Amino acid sequence: MLPLPPGSRIGILGGGQLGRMLALAAAPLGFRCHIFGPDDQPPAGQVTDRITIADYLDEAALNAFAASVDVVTLEFENVPATCLEFLAQRVPVRPGARALATAQDRLLEKDFANSVGAATAPYAAVDNLRDLQGAMAKIGSRAVLKTRRLGYDGKGQIMLDRGADLDQAWQTLGGTPSILEGYIPFDGEISVIAARATNGTIGAYPPIANHHRNHILDRSEVPADLNSVQADRAVAIAADLATALDYVGVLAVEMFVVGDDLLVNEIAPRVHNSGHWSIEGAVTSQFEQHIRAICGLPLGAMALRGRIEMQNLIGDDVEQVPSLLAEPGAHLHLYGKTEVRPGRKMGHVTRILPEGVLPKPTAP
Amino acid sequence: MLPLPPGSRIGILGGGQLGRMLALAAAPLGFRCHIFGPDDQPPAGQVTDRITIADYLDEAALNAFAASVDVVTLEFENVPATCLEFLAQRVPVRPGARALATAQDRLLEKDFANSVGAATAPYAAVDNLRDLQGAMAKIGSRAVLKTRRLGYDGKGQIMLDRGADLDQAWQTLGGTPSILEGYIPFDGEISVIAARATNGTIGAYPPIANHHRNHILDRSEVPADLNSVQADRAVAIAADLATALDYVGVLAVEMFVVGDDLLVNEIAPRVHNSGHWSIEGAVTSQFEQHIRAICGLPLGAMALRGRIEMQNLIGDDVEQVPSLLAEPGAHLHLYGKTEVRPGRKMGHVTRILPEGVLPKPTAP
Repeated sequence: MLPLPPGSRIGILGGGQLGRMLALAAAPLGFRCHIFGPDDQPPAGQVTDRITIADYLDEAALNAFAASVDVVTLEFENVPATCLEFLAQRVPVRPGARALATAQDRLLEKDFANSVGAATAPYAAVDNLRDLQGAMAKIGSRAVLKTRRLGYDGKGQIMLDRGADLDQAWQTLGGTPSILEGYIPFDGEISVIAARATNGTIGAYPPIANHHRNHILDRSEVPADLNSVQADRAVAIAADLATALDYVGVLAVEMFVVGDDLLVNEIAPRVHNSGHWSIEGAVTSQFEQHIRAICGLPLGAMALRGRIEMQNLIGDDVEQVPSLLAEPGAHLHLYGKTEVRPGRKMGHVTRILPEGVLPKPTAP
Repeated sequence: MLPLPPGSRIGILGGGQLGRMLALAAAPLGFRCHIFGPDDQPPAGQVTDRITIADYLDEAALNAFAASVDVVTLEFENVPATCLEFLAQRVPVRPGARALATAQDRLLEKDFANSVGAATAPYAAVDNLRDLQGAMAKIGSRAVLKTRRLGYDGKGQIMLDRGADLDQAWQTLGGTPSILEGYIPFDGEISVIAARATNGTIGAYPPIANHHRNHILDRSEVPADLNSVQADRAVAIAADLATALDYVGVLAVEMFVVGDDLLVNEIAPRVHNSGHWSIEGAVTSQFEQHIRAICGLPLGAMALRGRIEMQNLIGDDVEQVPSLLAEPGAHLHLYGKTEVRPGRKMGHVTRILPEGVLPKPTAP
């Protein structure tokens, strides 16, 4: 396909912080954005000149949206498939419906990872209580029951030990199609953020080490402390998944490190919280890279500017803002959210380490 | 003054590329913007959720603008003084009217520079033809007649050699209050971009070497090739000017290098084209630094990330965009302008040099 010329408009499904940072990255490339989503006062709407607040199934609104943009992408993977199909008949949607369908469903996602030779934790489909009983017997003493769809940040999942009340667990998740995954006592969690262009070119940042707090990403460090064989393997897994999906855009793959093994945990078909450090920490940020890819432009360089740490500001962590503003070299990013709620991602801060790498301020 | 809290709104007078890059820098700090100016389809309006298209003297529009923002700044120094006075009665305006008045008038500007001990080219006020004749006799064989107000990019000025037709020159500039400046065969042109916070703290980038083409900035390199005494002196001049003006925000001072001397040529009371490289090339960009200063926040670190070059894309230079997008490590910035005109600043590109400093891309 031909690259989109400057002045083209990018439609973004979802108006949260990821859409906001995508829009901020689109502007220097000369692109304009149009945010579409159901939520009032989307953070991304503060940095764009066009927003539509409508349901993902509102066909009239989708029609007008499609007519106003040159390409559609998303910052949120749980957009209904019918919305994507509707849009895809009118305008290029990147990444495409197949990548979305795969990433939206934990069972398809794991089947897919295995199909390209990437290992996962043991798992089994659970469509009823009998499935759950059988899976529990097979998978072992400790496992996690997860809904196939719509889970995130620890929602829609229950840890089960041998002897747990399976009937109650099944009721708690609402009897919805689920999978049981063997619990993995991992050594670490990493992610790889890869980008794939319309011509099939792939690039990736080095693997990122992630640390969670209450099931929510708390802190990322890059490069992760892996040996080079394992680091190369992690990047190759992400590249294989992107190629097999004929993916266009930025893709994040979360993996568990278990000894020498890497187990794919989750595929996010979008820019990812664990890549926010790339705004200052890499030559090309994940946000610019995603915009480049979906607009048919060549990928940018993905090299690091040092050793980097990203810390999320969750809930009342925003009270740290004054001290972060006073910290030399701390790069603050706030998401424009008015209401502070526990567990809500309010912003993040990126530091390029060690201190010795940071040049000294110039003062007269 | 208390720092403005996240969620505050910044009013920006002028909607060009400087306003656009200010708005892009304001968002990560949690601020929203409101662009005010007379021109249709302002580039800055593409990245903000509120714009007012109105004349700078439209009091009703200014009233509504002032009521909607927490602080006012500008990206364009030739805003009428009455506009600033009107706004300053309603909301803090930073930098203030005095800095603007000084920078808007070449005579006041040079008088002011001399008053703080900074040298300039020889100059004389020219209010009529007789003044011009007297000034030409005093200043020497080659001089430049410039209107006191509203000149930029080589507009509003005429080079005069001994024996030139002074009557015609005076008519050409419209008989408007002017100054005659001695022509300086300089060794180089530099600028210093300094920032001053509400508490008086000052920071500056190292001096920047500037190269013009057809009187328009073409290329900037930082740090400029000066000895450390001269570099320190250049920064000290900018700091002295900022302090004497009780300035708040980012200020650019253009100087001629003539042997060991530095002559102040122009003071720009705003972010400046010669500082665009700071978006990638410094820990804190001039745009973020200006936002920090006018919002009462502490200044960020101003250290460089390497040796840096910025190239303007003027007029049909934008035809280079495809090759710039394919160049690893070239940071492209387009300004969202639809119409390409000769001499029009369409964008810029920043490179961090030498190649050896750029980390290698990671590819699987």
